Amino acid sequence: MNQSIHPVLLCGGSGTRLWPLSRKSYPKQFVNLSCDESLYQASARRLSGAGYAAPIIVTGADFRFIVIEQLAAVEMAPADILIEPSAKNTAAAICAAALALEAREAGALMLVAPSDHVIPDAAQFRDAVAAAAPAAKSGQLVTFGIRPDRAETGYGWLELSQPTDDFGPVPQPLKSFVEKPDREKAEALLAGGMHLWNAGIFLFSTTTILEAFAKHAPEVLDITRAAFGAAEKDLSFTRLDADEWAKLPDISIDYAVMERADNLTVVPYSGAWSDLGDWQAVWRDGDADASDTVLTGPATALDCEGTLLHATSEAQELVGIGLKDIVAVAMPDAVLVAHKDRAQEVKAAVAKLKEKAVPQAETLPRDYRPWGWYESLVVGSRFQVKRIVVHPGAALSLQSHHHRAEHWIVVEGTAKVTVDDTVKLVTENQSVYIPLGAVHRMENPGKVPMVLIEVQTGSYLGEDDIIRYEDVYSRGQGAKG
Amino acid sequence: MNQSIHPVLLCGGSGTRLWPLSRKSYPKQFVNLSCDESLYQASARRLSGAGYAAPIIVTGADFRFIVIEQLAAVEMAPADILIEPSAKNTAAAICAAALALEAREAGALMLVAPSDHVIPDAAQFRDAVAAAAPAAKSGQLVTFGIRPDRAETGYGWLELSQPTDDFGPVPQPLKSFVEKPDREKAEALLAGGMHLWNAGIFLFSTTTILEAFAKHAPEVLDITRAAFGAAEKDLSFTRLDADEWAKLPDISIDYAVMERADNLTVVPYSGAWSDLGDWQAVWRDGDADASDTVLTGPATALDCEGTLLHATSEAQELVGIGLKDIVAVAMPDAVLVAHKDRAQEVKAAVAKLKEKAVPQAETLPRDYRPWGWYESLVVGSRFQVKRIVVHPGAALSLQSHHHRAEHWIVVEGTAKVTVDDTVKLVTENQSVYIPLGAVHRMENPGKVPMVLIEVQTGSYLGEDDIIRYEDVYSRGQGAKG
Repeated sequence: MNQSIHPVLLCGGSGTRLWPLSRKSYPKQFVNLSCDESLYQASARRLSGAGYAAPIIVTGADFRFIVIEQLAAVEMAPADILIEPSAKNTAAAICAAALALEAREAGALMLVAPSDHVIPDAAQFRDAVAAAAPAAKSGQLVTFGIRPDRAETGYGWLELSQPTDDFGPVPQPLKSFVEKPDREKAEALLAGGMHLWNAGIFLFSTTTILEAFAKHAPEVLDITRAAFGAAEKDLSFTRLDADEWAKLPDISIDYAVMERADNLTVVPYSGAWSDLGDWQAVWRDGDADASDTVLTGPATALDCEGTLLHATSEAQELVGIGLKDIVAVAMPDAVLVAHKDRAQEVKAAVAKLKEKAVPQAETLPRDYRPWGWYESLVVGSRFQVKRIVVHPGAALSLQSHHHRAEHWIVVEGTAKVTVDDTVKLVTENQSVYIPLGAVHRMENPGKVPMVLIEVQTGSYLGEDDIIRYEDVYSRGQGAKG
Repeated sequence: MNQSIHPVLLCGGSGTRLWPLSRKSYPKQFVNLSCDESLYQASARRLSGAGYAAPIIVTGADFRFIVIEQLAAVEMAPADILIEPSAKNTAAAICAAALALEAREAGALMLVAPSDHVIPDAAQFRDAVAAAAPAAKSGQLVTFGIRPDRAETGYGWLELSQPTDDFGPVPQPLKSFVEKPDREKAEALLAGGMHLWNAGIFLFSTTTILEAFAKHAPEVLDITRAAFGAAEKDLSFTRLDADEWAKLPDISIDYAVMERADNLTVVPYSGAWSDLGDWQAVWRDGDADASDTVLTGPATALDCEGTLLHATSEAQELVGIGLKDIVAVAMPDAVLVAHKDRAQEVKAAVAKLKEKAVPQAETLPRDYRPWGWYESLVVGSRFQVKRIVVHPGAALSLQSHHHRAEHWIVVEGTAKVTVDDTVKLVTENQSVYIPLGAVHRMENPGKVPMVLIEVQTGSYLGEDDIIRYEDVYSRGQGAKG
C-alpha cells in the first residue's frame, strides 16, 4: 500500500525583514510577492495531489481565518489547523502537529515545511520527497539539503557523509548540522562541496519524531502533549492550551532534536530555492535585466544597476534614476529605500517605527476578518469612508454604535441587512441608513463577494465603539469587525 | 508722491524636474513644499503691503482658478489675470503684462518675478526693490543679482561693472549677461567676485520696457499688442487672443531684450534665494541634520548621508536605510528614488512615463476645478467613490449622466441639491440619490467648505459622460466637472 504523506505547514512567522510588504498583521507567507498566489498557497499546492493528504496548518490566532481563506482560494481545505497561543519556535509547533497526526493515523509520514519559501519546480521537489520516503518509513529523520550557490552566512548548513555528483535526490546519512558560519567558513563550506544549505524541511513518521522528542527533548514533548490534551476545538481550529503552551521553551527543532539525533538522513535538492529572507534575497530571486536590475509592478528604471524596484500597486508608479545597489519598495501607505547590503536592517527600522507608534510598522491598510476584509479609504475629522468586502455566506456580527451613524451603499453583489426589527435585501446601487444606536447586521447571502461602501459620520469613529450582540465567529465585546 | 510698484507674477511654468510633487496639472509654484503656503502664495505675499499694488498674474488657462483660489486663501486678490493661450516663454508674458498695466496706469513701475522661487527674507528683498525704484523711475531696466555661493552651471550670471563689498542693494550699471557657464567658467566667475546669479527678477516702468521691446524685439511687441487688443474678458480673466499668440516666437526676456539693451542696472541681493530647480536644490534648501540628510514629513532615516527623504502625506511613511546621496520622494500615487547628482534627469523619466501613457506623468489624484476639487478614492469595475470639496458659494454645473447613478452623502457643511424639479438642503450625515439620467446640480450655499462622498455605480464611469445644461464657469459639453 502506498502511504500518503501529510504536509505540515508552519505559518506562524511574522517576517519583518520584508517590511513594508510583510507586516505583523499579514506576514510574508500570505503576501503575493510576484506571482498570482501567496508563498503559503504555493507551498500548500506544491505538497498536494497524488500521494499527499490534506495539510496540517500550524499558525497563530491572528492568521486563523487567512489560512482557511487562502487555501479555499486555491481549492484546498486543511485537515487540521493548530493554533499556537504564542510563538515558541519550530520544536513545539512540529511536536504538536505530530501529536495531532498520530491521534488520527499512528505512524503516518509527515513532511514539515516552512510556508514562506520559494521552490519554483514543484515536481522536482516532490521527486525528492518521494526519494526520501523509504528512509522516513524505516525510522530515519530526513532533512532536505539545498545545493548551495554562494557562501551564505545567513543559513545553517548540512554536512554530507559522502560526495554527491549531481546533487540528485539520493538519500545518504547526514554527518552533522553546521550552525550559521562566518564569511570565511562559509567560503570553505562552499568550496569543499560536502555541505548543503539547511532549508528546515523534514520528512519523518510520527512514531520516529515523537520517539526523538521523548529521547532528546522530553520537556517539549510533555508540555506540548499537555497543551494538545487540553486543546479546545473552536470551529475548525484546534486551540492549543495557552497555560500549558506558555511553559514551553523557545527552541528550534534543530537544537531540540536534530543536532542530538543519530538517525539522520539527508536528501540533496538541486532545484532552485529561496527563503526570501530579506529584500536582497527578493532581488536575487527576481528576473534581472542586463544591469542586474529587477523591476516588479509599475516600476521604471533609468540607468540603474544591481537595484530592486518593487512596486506593489497598480495605482502607484515607482521611478528609479541612476541607482546602484538600492532596494526600493513602494506601497501606498509606506515606502522603503535601502542600500541592498543593508536590507537586513529593515528589522531595526520597523522597531523604530513601532517606538514612534506608527501604525504602518505592524498593520496594513486592509484589515482581514473572518467574514472578509475592509479598508479605510479616507478619514476626516467627523467622517470615515470604508470599502467592505464580505465573502459569500459570511456575516458580520449583530452590533450597534454609540457615536456614529452609517450609510451603506452596495456596489457589488447583494447584502442582507438587518436594522433593528427589519431585515431586507439590498442590491447593487441601493443604499441603507443605519442611525446612531440602531442594532444592525450585514450578511452576504449570495454566491459572489459583496462589496459595500460605508460612510460613517459622528464625533468618534474608533473601531472600539461597538456593542456586539451575536457573532458566528465567537468574538467578544470591543473586538473588531 | 510715492509711486506704487505693481508685481507681475509669472505662473505659467510646469516644472517637471520636481516630479512627482510638481505635475503638469499642478506645477511646483502651487505646491506646498515645506511650509504652509505654496511658492506662489509666498511670492505674492512677499510683494504686498505698503508701496505695492495688487499683483498681475500671467498664467495658463489650466491654472486660472488655482491662481485666484490660492490668492484668496492668503486674503489677496489679483488686479489682472492674463491667460496665455500657450507657453511662449518670458518675453511675451512680460510684454502682455506691460501692455495691460500701461492701459491702466501709463508709466507705472512693474516688478516682474517668477512665482516658484524661495526668498525667505521678504523684508530684505523689499528693501532691495525699494533701492532699485529710483533707477527704474529714471528709465533703467533693473535686474536683481543674487550673491552666489557655489559655481552653479544651471543659471545665467550677471557681470558687475564694479566690485561690491557686501553685496548690499546698491544699484550699479550692469556690464553684461553671461549665459549658463560650464563648470570651469563657473568656478572662475565665482572666484572673481564680479558676477552674480541672474534670478530673472526685474523692475522697470511700462514706458521703459515697452520702448525696449519696440527697439529690440518689435515683432514680439506687435504680436503681443494684437493678442492683447483682441483679448476676451471672461469673468476676471483676460484671455489673450489665441490666433495672434500662436504667431509669437518662443523667446526669453533675456534674449529678446535684456542682452541687447544698454540702459541696464543691477541691484545685488545678498539674502537667501533658491529657484528649487530640481530635487538637489530642494535638498540644499532644506534643514539638514549632522549627516547632511534632510527629512520632510513622516520620514525616518537610519544611517543616511547627504540624502533627501521627502514624504508628502501623513498617511504614508518613508524609511531610508544606509543611503548616500539619494533623493527619495514619496507620494501615495508615485515614488521617485534618484541619485542626487542625477536629479535633473527626472524630466527624462517623466517623458518616459508619458510615452507609456501613465497618468501620474502629468496629473495628480486630486483634480482642481473652479468650484473646488475632487479625488477618486477607489475605482471598481462598476463603481467609483469620490471625495468632492465645494468652496463656499460655489456650484457645479447643472448636469446629467447617461451611464451612472450617484449616491451623495454630505459629511461636512451643507449642500443645496437640485434633482430634476426638486431643490433641497442636505446637511452633514444626510444622503441623496441621483438616478441615472436625472438632471442634477450641487451647490455650497454655506460659509464653510462642503465635503461630500459620491458613490457612482454604472457600466461606464468616465468623466466625459456628462451633459451640461448650465455652468457659471462657462465650460462646454464634455468638459470636466
